[in-house]
Amino acid sequence: MKNCIVIQSGGPTAAINSSLAGVIKRASEVGYDHIYGGINGIVGVLSQKVCDLTEKISEDPDFIEKLKKTPAMYLGSCRLRLPDPKSEPAIYDTLYSYFRSLDIDTFFGIGGNDSMDTVMKLAYYFKRKGSPIRVIGVPKTIDNDLMFTDHTPGFGSAAKYVASTIREMAYDTMIYPVKSITVVEVMGRDSGWLTAASALARTESVSAPQLIYLPEVPFSIENCIADTKALLKQRNSVLIAVSEGIRDRKGDYISASDAKEDKFGHLMLSGAGKALEHILGQALGVKIRSVELNIPQRCASHLASKTDIEEAFGLGSAGVDLAEEGKTGLMTTIERVSDDPYQISYSSVPVSDVANGVKNVPRDFINERGNDVTEKMVEYLKPLIQGEVDLSFNDGLPDFLPIPHLVDTTD
Amino acid sequence: MKNCIVIQSGGPTAAINSSLAGVIKRASEVGYDHIYGGINGIVGVLSQKVCDLTEKISEDPDFIEKLKKTPAMYLGSCRLRLPDPKSEPAIYDTLYSYFRSLDIDTFFGIGGNDSMDTVMKLAYYFKRKGSPIRVIGVPKTIDNDLMFTDHTPGFGSAAKYVASTIREMAYDTMIYPVKSITVVEVMGRDSGWLTAASALARTESVSAPQLIYLPEVPFSIENCIADTKALLKQRNSVLIAVSEGIRDRKGDYISASDAKEDKFGHLMLSGAGKALEHILGQALGVKIRSVELNIPQRCASHLASKTDIEEAFGLGSAGVDLAEEGKTGLMTTIERVSDDPYQISYSSVPVSDVANGVKNVPRDFINERGNDVTEKMVEYLKPLIQGEVDLSFNDGLPDFLPIPHLVDTTD
Repeated sequence: MKNCIVIQSGGPTAAINSSLAGVIKRASEVGYDHIYGGINGIVGVLSQKVCDLTEKISEDPDFIEKLKKTPAMYLGSCRLRLPDPKSEPAIYDTLYSYFRSLDIDTFFGIGGNDSMDTVMKLAYYFKRKGSPIRVIGVPKTIDNDLMFTDHTPGFGSAAKYVASTIREMAYDTMIYPVKSITVVEVMGRDSGWLTAASALARTESVSAPQLIYLPEVPFSIENCIADTKALLKQRNSVLIAVSEGIRDRKGDYISASDAKEDKFGHLMLSGAGKALEHILGQALGVKIRSVELNIPQRCASHLASKTDIEEAFGLGSAGVDLAEEGKTGLMTTIERVSDDPYQISYSSVPVSDVANGVKNVPRDFINERGNDVTEKMVEYLKPLIQGEVDLSFNDGLPDFLPIPHLVDTTD
Repeated sequence: MKNCIVIQSGGPTAAINSSLAGVIKRASEVGYDHIYGGINGIVGVLSQKVCDLTEKISEDPDFIEKLKKTPAMYLGSCRLRLPDPKSEPAIYDTLYSYFRSLDIDTFFGIGGNDSMDTVMKLAYYFKRKGSPIRVIGVPKTIDNDLMFTDHTPGFGSAAKYVASTIREMAYDTMIYPVKSITVVEVMGRDSGWLTAASALARTESVSAPQLIYLPEVPFSIENCIADTKALLKQRNSVLIAVSEGIRDRKGDYISASDAKEDKFGHLMLSGAGKALEHILGQALGVKIRSVELNIPQRCASHLASKTDIEEAFGLGSAGVDLAEEGKTGLMTTIERVSDDPYQISYSSVPVSDVANGVKNVPRDFINERGNDVTEKMVEYLKPLIQGEVDLSFNDGLPDFLPIPHLVDTTD
């Protein structure tokens, strides 16, 4: 028997199920007898909660295609960080026995930074044990902050959602002949890639967002007020895209602390968008509102990027090929071969190189004033949002794979 | 010369430009020489800021089709309420002179409640003056709260957006094996139609939203806590859809006042979703977050309902036909002929009947406990979100008509 097990972990994206589809499709092609899926990541595997994905593909010939377009995580997720295998091997011994009982040859972990830590530790443990079980990582994150890959699957779809939604909001905010500010808060606590994607909303006649603030550059409230004020002299509506993670020169998040206690005490628990709404509203005295794009950014499959979905699938598939070559402890990556025409190839990197690093936005992707991105950023981003997924609709709504195994009916 | 003028006013929807397209298309068919568009509603007309839409259609053969799919308001909007024409006729005299200078035969006003007030007053003035200028109203509002029409254009697209987004969020919230609550705040201060549309998100395997609260029924915090608690015994994730306008038995909005001052003083300026997030989080001690769907609800053309866009167009077109019959002071309406198969016909009603009424959700569309909608509501809503609009994408993003005339470069 040649079996494998696959898990998903970390936060959801619109593309992580496509990577799972890529693993399943390729694994069945190269002759795995059973492809098991761990329910709720490594937590589920530890409690032997798995499903047999081989059954799913034999039951439904459209399973792979539907899975590619279903948001969030078909297998569920978890947030467990495994201990150091050197000092605490017990949990690994448990996993090892279980894997042997299932005749597991390969473990695939699809996820972000933390999930690559799991892949790294498992690979280390099996190697040290002299076990032939291979461990392969497949990346995902809407944050686009993993090292050694041109970009991460999930990011392109999130970027397409952010840019489309901001373009539509730009139309919405332009209709009244009065001065107004709209602050849009975008996900990305430590890196500004997704907020930068708001720049793609622009057209010949839409200049929104007029200001873009990323966490990579210290945020100055004074400059922001001055820049917004100058814009309001030229036009009625100003749209500002701001990362949830903007910080001032001292490294403090922009929130209540930046406003006077007596006036903004109610901002204690609010984010950067809400904080800016109050600060700019107070300073400039015009109509103002803030919009937090929130979780639709990471699960809006109805606006997925076809490029992203196909690449996510390709990375899953490439992971299976690495295992076939007998490799272990690697994460699949994307290398950009050329911008125009956009061409990529799949490659890999030792997962230990990736596990604890973060790829921030380079300084020359942000303008000098720190309130916009440069043409370099736009050129980098553009190919990632290309193409639309041919989504099935049923009764007027997107039709996704059912995931009844994630509905817990504990008592 | 046979000329007409058309304005849009009130808040944006994904369908109001389709009504404008219906007016333009039909008006050009029935022989209007010039179709003028008032920029920024009646405010623009008063300052003689108009454009010639006849030129637009002759310049671009795709203008009508593109306009149907462009969000918000091509002509811009305003929020001016005209004075009583009996006591303050001066402003009407100004409009009358301007209309005569343009050889205007008919005035079309596309909008919601307040806009119908403008239509009513203008119709009254011209009639009293003995002028043959006809005044016709075309409805729109995402709130679906206009009287004497089965539903309003703009609502179906907003409903489709709300249901699709909540279905995607349901997938997102089910992935972790931990207890969690997600509160989703939906627009609709006085009527719960749009919040009710969240029920359409449900499938055989998705029961979200598990609770739905509309403003038509007094909101009880105690019941909401009890119902949520009971649900958390059966399942991990609970998703609650709540109208921004929910009020308690005394008619007070649910916000800071319902929580203890010392603990929730920071909620002063927040909405129902944020308030519930804090109240339920405090009471039940589980992971909780709130999501405000915000303005994308009314401008998400990328998820427009084809039924809605076609009906909005039909209502604009029907308005032109009413004027051709010599009618004035009427608003076009939709009558539902049958549910299954869904069939409608266009009709009309004196605009004075509509101008100051509100259509709330009937009590039997809401369950007895007041925490869900009934099958009657679902049957009513279902046809309105059917069909997808074939949107053009350019470089990965929805391609809309440019509206450079709304970018003010004052100074």
